[in-house]
Amino acid sequence: MGPLVVTPGDRAGIGPEVAAAGIALEPEAGPYVVVGSADAFLPWAARSGLQVVSVESVTAVPGCVAVFDPGDGGEPVEIGALRHGVTACLRGQAHALVTGPLHKARMARRGFPHPGHTEFLGELCGVEAPVMAFVGGQVRVALVTVHVPLRRVLEVLTTERVLHTIRAVAAVPLATSRLAVCGPNPHAGDEGLLGDEDQRVVAPAVLAARALGIDARGPMSAEAAFRAAVRGEVDWVVAAYHDQGLAPLKALEWASVEPGAANRSVNWTLGLPITRMGVDHGTADDIAGKGIADAGGMRAAIRLARSTRPPVSPG
Amino acid sequence: MGPLVVTPGDRAGIGPEVAAAGIALEPEAGPYVVVGSADAFLPWAARSGLQVVSVESVTAVPGCVAVFDPGDGGEPVEIGALRHGVTACLRGQAHALVTGPLHKARMARRGFPHPGHTEFLGELCGVEAPVMAFVGGQVRVALVTVHVPLRRVLEVLTTERVLHTIRAVAAVPLATSRLAVCGPNPHAGDEGLLGDEDQRVVAPAVLAARALGIDARGPMSAEAAFRAAVRGEVDWVVAAYHDQGLAPLKALEWASVEPGAANRSVNWTLGLPITRMGVDHGTADDIAGKGIADAGGMRAAIRLARSTRPPVSPG
Repeated sequence: MGPLVVTPGDRAGIGPEVAAAGIALEPEAGPYVVVGSADAFLPWAARSGLQVVSVESVTAVPGCVAVFDPGDGGEPVEIGALRHGVTACLRGQAHALVTGPLHKARMARRGFPHPGHTEFLGELCGVEAPVMAFVGGQVRVALVTVHVPLRRVLEVLTTERVLHTIRAVAAVPLATSRLAVCGPNPHAGDEGLLGDEDQRVVAPAVLAARALGIDARGPMSAEAAFRAAVRGEVDWVVAAYHDQGLAPLKALEWASVEPGAANRSVNWTLGLPITRMGVDHGTADDIAGKGIADAGGMRAAIRLARSTRPPVSPG
Repeated sequence: MGPLVVTPGDRAGIGPEVAAAGIALEPEAGPYVVVGSADAFLPWAARSGLQVVSVESVTAVPGCVAVFDPGDGGEPVEIGALRHGVTACLRGQAHALVTGPLHKARMARRGFPHPGHTEFLGELCGVEAPVMAFVGGQVRVALVTVHVPLRRVLEVLTTERVLHTIRAVAAVPLATSRLAVCGPNPHAGDEGLLGDEDQRVVAPAVLAARALGIDARGPMSAEAAFRAAVRGEVDWVVAAYHDQGLAPLKALEWASVEPGAANRSVNWTLGLPITRMGVDHGTADDIAGKGIADAGGMRAAIRLARSTRPPVSPG
């Protein structure tokens, strides 16, 4: 079983400490190769009691961790880390990629031209439109549109894009892949009274997916889709836009953890030839370096990455 | 303490049976006056073991129930029932109104010109814009826009309307009234990168509300608002549109009940001079009359109505 590549993310944030603490909480999910700034990570590895070995000597011993520092190859170490991590996954040298948080504005100042991990990983993998998905609160959600102002959602929401999202979801190897696909309007348009995009845009994508043998249902209202998900009647909710999918997922997640815990939902990039899970929280600069950051999100990402089989190529 | 007026709703649906069963589950929340078709209700009252007395003899004895049938005054009995119920509340003869489900299409065919309870109750109370709110999954949500196609949400979402909603919420007498007000865009617009309506439309309403002494926070992302609500840091989420508010509330609700249970969230009309709670499920014609309908939604509405003090006039 290949190692998990963990990129701690922004070295100035809580990434290095939650990476070390998360690994220490999940020794059996290893072996691990941490790719990033050794200076930033090693003190936290020591503090978490990790035994760090060289990359060549990584074995399946529980808790085995190697560190690989890509150094300054003319780009920030956080970026080089992602580049090396993706390459290792693409070459089959690693099982999956687990990423810590980046700080968007700080990375932009350091010359990183991508809005976030998802787009950069797409580029590294040669995939034009990776799909953003989340796991949390005991449900899985994939988004057809993501960081789009509400005013533009219906422009961006095309039948092709809905179908693309459905196919990326269906390519995830789970025991069952039953999808509830949301219409964008309240009550999925209420038979056209509350908008026609549910029938005009989403319904044809669901039909096309069914013709491909995918168990997709809809267009459904968001309430019905999440009822089905909460009850285990479907494995995925495909949401038309950001808040429709993520407000329920995060509400469920926060209702399930103790107050004060970090967000433990996991950001899962679909449509790539590799498995990538990321923490769904930020760099929390205000508490970075204090050793008080909650590693629950990193732990959840590690567990999910280890338990996920490699993606199959979309049918 | 005045009685609760319960209107069972459509006599052809599950309303009469869940009204009887709900009352039987909450004897201490009485006395009750059931206003509607006696023919439809009395058999279920007998089956639930209720002691039915005349309206004149209603007393505070636990489980005491009277039935008042408005008869056919030239309009469907379900409509006459609401008219009588509202009058009793407005006159101070009743504590609150609790409504069973209507069947929209059937009522329309019988000449009821309103899309639902909310609009008709507004008319009966002389209130132009009642506010639709819901309680469920341990959170409370009020909606600035309701049955509006996604394409039109931003047209309908005005500063005035946000402020109107906030004021209706603030008029509800709770121990604390802390409001999280959502922006319509993902991440509440992310400082303008994802839309300007959060700052341009919602922020001024929040500021105006604060100037009126209302503890309103925002504009917040839906995720942040529901995090605050789930953690008990706010008492209300004010959502910009239907799915933003109701998909999370219902997901939380469904996650909290056993599979197969009816939706137990409660529809609460704000901005009226009376207290009105309604069940948030339909007439379930397919199981009506079988005595198997889940009265949990009616029970929740009854409990909430009894525990709610009369509204204060908006400040």
